[in-house]
Amino acid sequence: MIVFRQLFEPESSTYTYLLGCRQTGDCLLIDPVVETIDRDLSAIQDLGLTLAMTLETHIHADHVSSSCRLRALTGCKVAYPAMEGPPCADVGVSEDQLVSLGGIVLRPLFTPGHTDTHHSYLMEAGPILQVFTGDALLIDGCGRTDFQNGSAETLYRSVREKLFTLPDDTLVYPAHDYEHRHVSTIAQERERNPRLGGGKSIENFLEIMANLKLPYPEKMDVAVPANLRCGDCGSNAPEELDQRGGKTKQG
Amino acid sequence: MIVFRQLFEPESSTYTYLLGCRQTGDCLLIDPVVETIDRDLSAIQDLGLTLAMTLETHIHADHVSSSCRLRALTGCKVAYPAMEGPPCADVGVSEDQLVSLGGIVLRPLFTPGHTDTHHSYLMEAGPILQVFTGDALLIDGCGRTDFQNGSAETLYRSVREKLFTLPDDTLVYPAHDYEHRHVSTIAQERERNPRLGGGKSIENFLEIMANLKLPYPEKMDVAVPANLRCGDCGSNAPEELDQRGGKTKQG
Repeated sequence: MIVFRQLFEPESSTYTYLLGCRQTGDCLLIDPVVETIDRDLSAIQDLGLTLAMTLETHIHADHVSSSCRLRALTGCKVAYPAMEGPPCADVGVSEDQLVSLGGIVLRPLFTPGHTDTHHSYLMEAGPILQVFTGDALLIDGCGRTDFQNGSAETLYRSVREKLFTLPDDTLVYPAHDYEHRHVSTIAQERERNPRLGGGKSIENFLEIMANLKLPYPEKMDVAVPANLRCGDCGSNAPEELDQRGGKTKQG
Repeated sequence: MIVFRQLFEPESSTYTYLLGCRQTGDCLLIDPVVETIDRDLSAIQDLGLTLAMTLETHIHADHVSSSCRLRALTGCKVAYPAMEGPPCADVGVSEDQLVSLGGIVLRPLFTPGHTDTHHSYLMEAGPILQVFTGDALLIDGCGRTDFQNGSAETLYRSVREKLFTLPDDTLVYPAHDYEHRHVSTIAQERERNPRLGGGKSIENFLEIMANLKLPYPEKMDVAVPANLRCGDCGSNAPEELDQRGGKTKQG
């Protein structure tokens, strides 16, 4: 039996997803945020689960990951898209290999455009598919494409050819929402996403993305370098390195 | 394994839900609409399932149910809230008894206010609860309360005390949406439903509902009498009566 929780970090409006397996007692966190590390660990403890893995959709520019610190505290593995390749990661994820943890099976979908190594994760558990779309596809929106080797043309293809071809009822769980919306479906985004849905052509999309006039992300100069080190390890860094050594030796 | 499909009827913007059980091959339809009877039967056939039951959330005023006609065509059972009690129904549903069909288990929740006998249905299948809220709770809205013994005060209590106390991640599948939204969650509606969410008091809600100035429902004078007969049986009526007789004798 799979356990699911959607958790929210209000400063960066980030959704972290907790997926657990009752049979093995293991769980993973998708896109955990350093500010909510205590809340996430409490949620895991309350569910009687053990954190076995953190999994990133991409190198975030708007918040710092708690992956590194969670590994220091729990000994969990840290997974990143393989092509991102930060040396701090334990597991490299790519589209040709399922991510399995107990009964949890995630299919990585390479969905570049917001960043050049962005991945979404598709899960089949129960009657409805769930896709964790990171910043590739948001509810009524999408991530920006103007830094980190982003490309509006690439994002258009990722969303239209890879995400919008999933079954209608697939639940869309994004990495962010700024208006307290929690979930959408592929059919909904295909029908009404104002940037990518309906009859929006690639020309329409390129024009929209070129004229967003978004401010420079406040945390980018801190977040990107930190996330390339699997997040801010803070005072746990030396301990974390010891633990990693221990984990490696054990197997 | 449970099969799920959300189906849309554009004239009345009604969502019909198909729930199937792969083990037994049976399925049920929640709130099927007469205009889309062929589409629904095709969907069932494509999935290799057999229609065993139709289930209504309430006596609809905005569309005519296809229950009666589906029974005539397939021999399925027709289920209604028991307190609604149309003599045409085969099964009376009430809050104290689960509705089971193969591996599908629905918990009826008595949620009056839009009509005085309205029920929602809660399903646990897979990692996330799903609640079919009929017209009690819509995405960013709710059903009107100005006819069919509706009561805004009663609806406020149904939503706040019965639906909003479900777990945060519970998926809200409404009977209608007029803006191509497909799904919400209990947390989302609790946080941002402009009528019932956030800090909205019962006084706020009563004022909102008293000032909606909605037109008289176009189809009400046809739909309500028809739905009290389990929908328009059309030319299949005599056959339907024969089949019901047959079904009764057989079991």
